[in-house]
Amino acid sequence: MSATPTDPAPPAGLTQAEGRRGRELFDELFGELTAIGLAADGSTTRLMWTEETAAAAAWFDRTATRLGLHPSVDRNGNRWAWSAAPTAGAIVTGSHLDSVPGGGRFDGALGVLTGLVAAHLLTLRGGLARPLAVVSFADEEGGRFDIPTFGSRTMLGSLDVEANLERADAAGITLREALVDAGLDPTAMGRDEPSLARIGAFVEVHIEQGMLLTEVGEPLAIGTAILPHGRWRLELTGEANHAGTTALDARHDPMPVLAAAITAARAVAGEEQALATVGKVEVAPNSTNSVAGHVSLWLDARAADAQTVERVVERIVAAAREAADAHQVALDVRRESFVGAVHFSGELRERIVEVLAELGIEDVPMATGAGHDAGALAAAVPTAMLFVRSATGASHSQRELASVEDCQVGIGALTAVLAALAADNDTPTR
Amino acid sequence: MSATPTDPAPPAGLTQAEGRRGRELFDELFGELTAIGLAADGSTTRLMWTEETAAAAAWFDRTATRLGLHPSVDRNGNRWAWSAAPTAGAIVTGSHLDSVPGGGRFDGALGVLTGLVAAHLLTLRGGLARPLAVVSFADEEGGRFDIPTFGSRTMLGSLDVEANLERADAAGITLREALVDAGLDPTAMGRDEPSLARIGAFVEVHIEQGMLLTEVGEPLAIGTAILPHGRWRLELTGEANHAGTTALDARHDPMPVLAAAITAARAVAGEEQALATVGKVEVAPNSTNSVAGHVSLWLDARAADAQTVERVVERIVAAAREAADAHQVALDVRRESFVGAVHFSGELRERIVEVLAELGIEDVPMATGAGHDAGALAAAVPTAMLFVRSATGASHSQRELASVEDCQVGIGALTAVLAALAADNDTPTR
Repeated sequence: MSATPTDPAPPAGLTQAEGRRGRELFDELFGELTAIGLAADGSTTRLMWTEETAAAAAWFDRTATRLGLHPSVDRNGNRWAWSAAPTAGAIVTGSHLDSVPGGGRFDGALGVLTGLVAAHLLTLRGGLARPLAVVSFADEEGGRFDIPTFGSRTMLGSLDVEANLERADAAGITLREALVDAGLDPTAMGRDEPSLARIGAFVEVHIEQGMLLTEVGEPLAIGTAILPHGRWRLELTGEANHAGTTALDARHDPMPVLAAAITAARAVAGEEQALATVGKVEVAPNSTNSVAGHVSLWLDARAADAQTVERVVERIVAAAREAADAHQVALDVRRESFVGAVHFSGELRERIVEVLAELGIEDVPMATGAGHDAGALAAAVPTAMLFVRSATGASHSQRELASVEDCQVGIGALTAVLAALAADNDTPTR
Repeated sequence: MSATPTDPAPPAGLTQAEGRRGRELFDELFGELTAIGLAADGSTTRLMWTEETAAAAAWFDRTATRLGLHPSVDRNGNRWAWSAAPTAGAIVTGSHLDSVPGGGRFDGALGVLTGLVAAHLLTLRGGLARPLAVVSFADEEGGRFDIPTFGSRTMLGSLDVEANLERADAAGITLREALVDAGLDPTAMGRDEPSLARIGAFVEVHIEQGMLLTEVGEPLAIGTAILPHGRWRLELTGEANHAGTTALDARHDPMPVLAAAITAARAVAGEEQALATVGKVEVAPNSTNSVAGHVSLWLDARAADAQTVERVVERIVAAAREAADAHQVALDVRRESFVGAVHFSGELRERIVEVLAELGIEDVPMATGAGHDAGALAAAVPTAMLFVRSATGASHSQRELASVEDCQVGIGALTAVLAALAADNDTPTR
């Protein structure tokens, strides 16, 4: 189809026809995908190994086929769409299709959608020296079992799946049961050398999770690093009793200990220039006229360096322990996950800066406090991230938003980057 | 059957044969009833209008029939078992069969069980001047919709059912839906004059919820009063966001406000010689790597007088409001229920003290911080409570326990009290 007078200018990196095709395709696919797991309040919930992620996986396979790509799933539950027969040194893009509970429509989805559109447009252009693949990693958020970047870390062998199989979700379903239910074999999971060997370089597009790009007036940033971050679970065991008959000094109430942990998290994070968040709590029996018997709370902590994260967590746990002793409550602390600082490949980043400079896109360097599959992969292959400007700064929320125009900039930029990397024998690859 | 040499002495108030029959029957019925809703950890969960309470209701009707009593259900969902055709001025005993989440085996159940056994024994004796009834009130605990003493207060017309029909449980099911699902007509609920008119006097047996009887070395106490108590719901509305990318000063985090409310509840209760408890919390989206967007918390407050309860709640809410302002979180407070001080009928209490003195049972006066159906009924009819010694002091917990012997003392005492009241034209009645 040729351009009509009403067509907007294509984003840098695409022809007029590609811009139009990309725009139409992105709109259509965005509508299809975001309908899965969308709640009445506008938030998205696609927890891993549920009906919603199964529907998203079916959509991914169907869409890949429709776009001339070849879908497959690896033994760790990651889904792939290849432009041609897989070979070593391919150029891979993608992200994830799961979400946190009550999350946004762009986190993860934008990386998969822009990847599918870009791979489709480049397949139509033809003449690639290396094959392309779009990947949708399993359980990036860890919204169900608190094991983030499950699929990418398992592929790398940096996550011990076996040791986590008895971990249960809020409904008491274990990871083992969920995996088996999803048709996967937990005993077959682990480092996937063939899949890894095929990745020459990995580029992940993601919505920005803040307001830096709005502040500097640019639509795109190029990732430099991911801050160290981790999750800790605190188990507070007291004794359930009657709220109307149990004297204060006869109580073993875990709730004031929860309060101390939340208060300490906020105060210590401020003092240490870090982030510490209690965003998830489970109370048992969770009854208005009962003193609680047990509280589980999850602490998310991040800082510029791993030592600070460690010190932040130590200080919060110390405050919780003091309160636990005062209230005669038992405290058990378990680290559920930790990822140290990640620095993306400098060489690959330089190459991307060059490609984008040719399109007139400025280099806005961005370090992020959020974890990503690209962070996991960076340990094994040259990895880069492109961040598309957020209109609201909100993340893990229905208020998460990137403008139509900025998503198109992302598609144009990713297409140009993938084209350059796939055409180029100088591409930094594994 | 005659006594055998191995028979223990019957409890005061019963013949040897009655003691044996009562013991065997109580053991059997206790086993049948407590199997309903019993969890692996030994706790009991029978929330109202669920499968568990439906099973308990069916058990009640079946057991009543088996014991020569006549079961019926009123339009407010309360279940009755009559010794003869209902008439005005009957002597009524009973309690409730619902529980809090993760509750004990005796709370409510003991009053129904001792009532059924005593009414059965007295029916066998015969010659009663007034009929007896055993009642099982609907939803005493309010464990599902936070509307305690639902059945007794609705019978009195002191609870506006219509105004609460859209209140939802944790799964989003409304009270209206739950009632209809249970085969009841919500529009037909309200003050039940015929049922009330039949109650000449009401006596409720309940397990003690503390250690007073152990301290004084007596098996039984006679209620004097119920302390004023109520439930408040605090809604904290902030903004969900990403825990790894949202700066502390950009957060609208309801969790530190929850912490302030919990901390204040404990501190203020101590200062005011009151009880204040946060035992129930709901967090949304309840995700580890999300700043929470919304927290609901329930505050249970009790004190010796209504003014103190009011002051305690005001002070806790003021602390929560200060934190809410500091964290830019909206706070909404709603009183979900309140029951002022209840003083049981002095005249009926005197009569019971006399009857029990003849059995050699001491008068241990007991005021309680726990709400009971007897408290609701006290506004309309002469009402009394008998407390059976607790072996652990625990309540709303699987550790709740009354010894076999103390339960038998309760059966003997209740039988004697009911016999005296039903035989006696001097009985203080409505």
